[in-house]
Amino acid sequence: MMIQKSLHLFRSICKKWKKCHLVMPSCSLAKSGCFHHDLVKWSLARPFHHNQRWQAETRRSHSTSLHRVPFAMVTEHDIDFFEKLLPRRAITDPDVLESYNVDWLKSVKGSSKLLLRPQTTQEISHILRYCNERNLAVCPQGGNTGLVGGSVPVFDEIILSTSLMNKVLSFDTVSGVLVCQAGCVLEDLNSFVEEKGFVMPLDLGAKGSCQIGGNVSTNAGGLRLLRYGSLRGTVLGLEVVLANGKVLNLLSSLRKDNTGYDVKQLFIGSEGTLGVITAVSILCPCIPKAVNVAFLGCNTIQQLLQTFRCCKGMLGEILSAFEFLDSASMQLLQNHLKLTNPITESPFYILIETSGSNASHDEEKLHNFLQHAMNTALITDGTMAKEDSKIKALWMLRERITEALLHDGYTYKYDISVPVEHIYQAVLDMRVHLRDQAKSVVGYGHLGDGNLHLNITSPLYDSALHSLIEPFIYEWTAKHHGSISAEHGLGLKKRNYIHYSKPAEAVYIMSHLKNMLDPKKILNPYKTLPDYIS
Amino acid sequence: MMIQKSLHLFRSICKKWKKCHLVMPSCSLAKSGCFHHDLVKWSLARPFHHNQRWQAETRRSHSTSLHRVPFAMVTEHDIDFFEKLLPRRAITDPDVLESYNVDWLKSVKGSSKLLLRPQTTQEISHILRYCNERNLAVCPQGGNTGLVGGSVPVFDEIILSTSLMNKVLSFDTVSGVLVCQAGCVLEDLNSFVEEKGFVMPLDLGAKGSCQIGGNVSTNAGGLRLLRYGSLRGTVLGLEVVLANGKVLNLLSSLRKDNTGYDVKQLFIGSEGTLGVITAVSILCPCIPKAVNVAFLGCNTIQQLLQTFRCCKGMLGEILSAFEFLDSASMQLLQNHLKLTNPITESPFYILIETSGSNASHDEEKLHNFLQHAMNTALITDGTMAKEDSKIKALWMLRERITEALLHDGYTYKYDISVPVEHIYQAVLDMRVHLRDQAKSVVGYGHLGDGNLHLNITSPLYDSALHSLIEPFIYEWTAKHHGSISAEHGLGLKKRNYIHYSKPAEAVYIMSHLKNMLDPKKILNPYKTLPDYIS
Repeated sequence: MMIQKSLHLFRSICKKWKKCHLVMPSCSLAKSGCFHHDLVKWSLARPFHHNQRWQAETRRSHSTSLHRVPFAMVTEHDIDFFEKLLPRRAITDPDVLESYNVDWLKSVKGSSKLLLRPQTTQEISHILRYCNERNLAVCPQGGNTGLVGGSVPVFDEIILSTSLMNKVLSFDTVSGVLVCQAGCVLEDLNSFVEEKGFVMPLDLGAKGSCQIGGNVSTNAGGLRLLRYGSLRGTVLGLEVVLANGKVLNLLSSLRKDNTGYDVKQLFIGSEGTLGVITAVSILCPCIPKAVNVAFLGCNTIQQLLQTFRCCKGMLGEILSAFEFLDSASMQLLQNHLKLTNPITESPFYILIETSGSNASHDEEKLHNFLQHAMNTALITDGTMAKEDSKIKALWMLRERITEALLHDGYTYKYDISVPVEHIYQAVLDMRVHLRDQAKSVVGYGHLGDGNLHLNITSPLYDSALHSLIEPFIYEWTAKHHGSISAEHGLGLKKRNYIHYSKPAEAVYIMSHLKNMLDPKKILNPYKTLPDYIS
Repeated sequence: MMIQKSLHLFRSICKKWKKCHLVMPSCSLAKSGCFHHDLVKWSLARPFHHNQRWQAETRRSHSTSLHRVPFAMVTEHDIDFFEKLLPRRAITDPDVLESYNVDWLKSVKGSSKLLLRPQTTQEISHILRYCNERNLAVCPQGGNTGLVGGSVPVFDEIILSTSLMNKVLSFDTVSGVLVCQAGCVLEDLNSFVEEKGFVMPLDLGAKGSCQIGGNVSTNAGGLRLLRYGSLRGTVLGLEVVLANGKVLNLLSSLRKDNTGYDVKQLFIGSEGTLGVITAVSILCPCIPKAVNVAFLGCNTIQQLLQTFRCCKGMLGEILSAFEFLDSASMQLLQNHLKLTNPITESPFYILIETSGSNASHDEEKLHNFLQHAMNTALITDGTMAKEDSKIKALWMLRERITEALLHDGYTYKYDISVPVEHIYQAVLDMRVHLRDQAKSVVGYGHLGDGNLHLNITSPLYDSALHSLIEPFIYEWTAKHHGSISAEHGLGLKKRNYIHYSKPAEAVYIMSHLKNMLDPKKILNPYKTLPDYIS
């Protein structure tokens, strides 16, 4: 809810910022690698720091100049057509369009003159058929909470919002299969299925605003991936409208179906560049009856990895999160947010969450694991919580690092995944590489998923430091067979860095897939694929 | 192991059968929908019944005549090339070729004159580049345990066996990520990771023979899907050789990677028609420390579904199987195999398996669930086992139904998945539809996955009965938004029935994918896609 409020607040103050020349010019980009939803909360609370960041990013706006592809321009005749098709839902009011043209982080701003708000798949079909025939570019938009500039127009693309497509179509209380329209907000869906004893298989910080269609289009990861796996397994079916307006109904509710190629996978994680997802069928797990959290200290990265292995073995089926932070992160929490370290100081800290169907069983398992970890000197100290308030307090130590970092100065943020054994090496190597040129180099993240948040700070934005970090971090990630975008996608901002994580043959196949499904390339242009092939 | 032995036995007696004119003529097909690995065990034990089945299927061989696509014929020059490339591994000996030309069920027989046994990805690359240039058709073959005729040549396609590509490339004991060549046998891999405290995320009856490359190519489901999800989530990376010989290295070990389209998904479940999988990266869960099984009786299908829902809620994280059988199935077990029903007679029986990290916790959870189910009259009676021998005895009641059916007469077998609320309706509707024309109509299967095994018997093969069953069962499945092939794929046998489960738009996209990745269509021709587009 805090995030939803932030988003509303952000939209409401957009105009003021524009007047203050703080919104970046059309089509300018922030090069800085990675952003967090926490940043928005913070930036709204601290506009001055935010301005500083923006100015820095404006200076470093994308060096390759991006030119508008010669799509048709929206004419009065087009607007007449859409107003007839979508009475009072074809919006041209610049004030309304304002917030739809800017991304959540205010890092990219388009100049679309037309927002369409369809309510049905058939309407989206009519829209795309028309746009394809007229060669009009379209930017599909869900909750507009993406972090890589994928959800807003770059130039004057028509914004196709799925916000009014927010109906639950069915829920099977036996199988837990939910079928709903793409515009349903994740938090609303979670409330809906929770009443029936289930949870959504994914959870994100942006859940109050993000929509399930956008989640699937970006293959969102989030907090429950360790436990319930990726959307590629939990999404059972999709309904998609193709670029030419044809409706592809693959809205199956089946756990098993091996009849031909699994075409729906093409649309999961393709960021709206291959089709517009209009409905989703997704498998929801049962709601856990008990949640426990432990916060532990650890001396070495080897012990951290051994603790993870031991934890998986002893907690197995109830382990729902295995997060870590380093002592530098803890220092920031203490210095800037005055948070208290609940345990003895250690080089590394671990946050373990269990979710299960029996509270006393879970506590006992966690207790046994902790005893074993202490007896074998894997951990140095620890504390355990089962009450909501204490659980939240422990989670704060993990969740508020982003906020603490922003108090520390200008933050260079990276979100990479690597084979888990290398997860902390990026931090160590970066420290050696930067010597004393950075203020802080800290690492934390989802160890259970091999997902590291590497953050570097300097008192002010420092272009020399930035040039030392990039492309070093991308090269380091490539060398360790990692991903330069663990869960945020490529969008507009990272599309030209794809070669750090994917071989040329794969990018070549991607370009063919784009040509096959969207030959006029009207769907979300300038996104996902690198400039040289898009 | 029993299955592996059966396979060896089957190969050794192939020649005898051929002499007896029991092996079907080249390119003939069994129309009967679905087969079980258990059938092979049984047929080897009871050749007479098996013969009867074969004769019946021969009479009903596929009505659409299949013509050889004008690929090039293998010449002496080609054989010279391959013998130089693969010394002593380019096989032309007809005796050796015999078993590679026939599928496991002996339902399809090709007439390939050349078997290639590469050991490296590079060799496969050379082979495919050469075949693509020469327009020579290729049939990739793993363990040859497929059930839909997908793994053997139809005419004279060159057989490309992955059997010698059986090396484990790496195993990460922290993350549980296994990377191995495609020809590794599933059971060998499971033994390998078990020693390190993990299990493979899939388990199949054919595990003693099937290879991981084939498992991934067919998107195998199996016994652990309810617990660990589908291969689309657990397969983290693939190495694939494309039809033109190019190597596509997507052998990532990352749980999270959102850099561009997930190209590897194209090769999961495409039955070797889009590329040859040469290596697999797969996430292995920790080995469970405790296993329990309960066998329960239930009065109605509504109670069966309610029991499933309740079970998911109360056992949640430890539930690893929820299987069911009807009273007609139990009757067959009692009549033909003299097995004893361990509980009071009931219209339905449920087999529940739990796998967890703490034996006493699991027992307690199961006990609580059983008490609740009894108190609320969801179940009529039940028994619980924690010792290996009793667990096996209870599993027998589920696993030996196929064998019991074959004692009952000629069996018409179907393997469909439907939304779980309809799972038993197929049996009821089929009984009404067939009136008294069938001997038995029984239903059992993986309720947890919505996967029904519908089986019908008659004293002898009865073409009138067969015509009553098909296409009725396919139409019924389509009407209930089900899949006509839950986990076996389409292969050669079911490719022309794809429209019962997939819309024309999806099949159209599939045909484009085929054209894109294999424009000469040399890879596993006559498989997966319907004749009118392949």
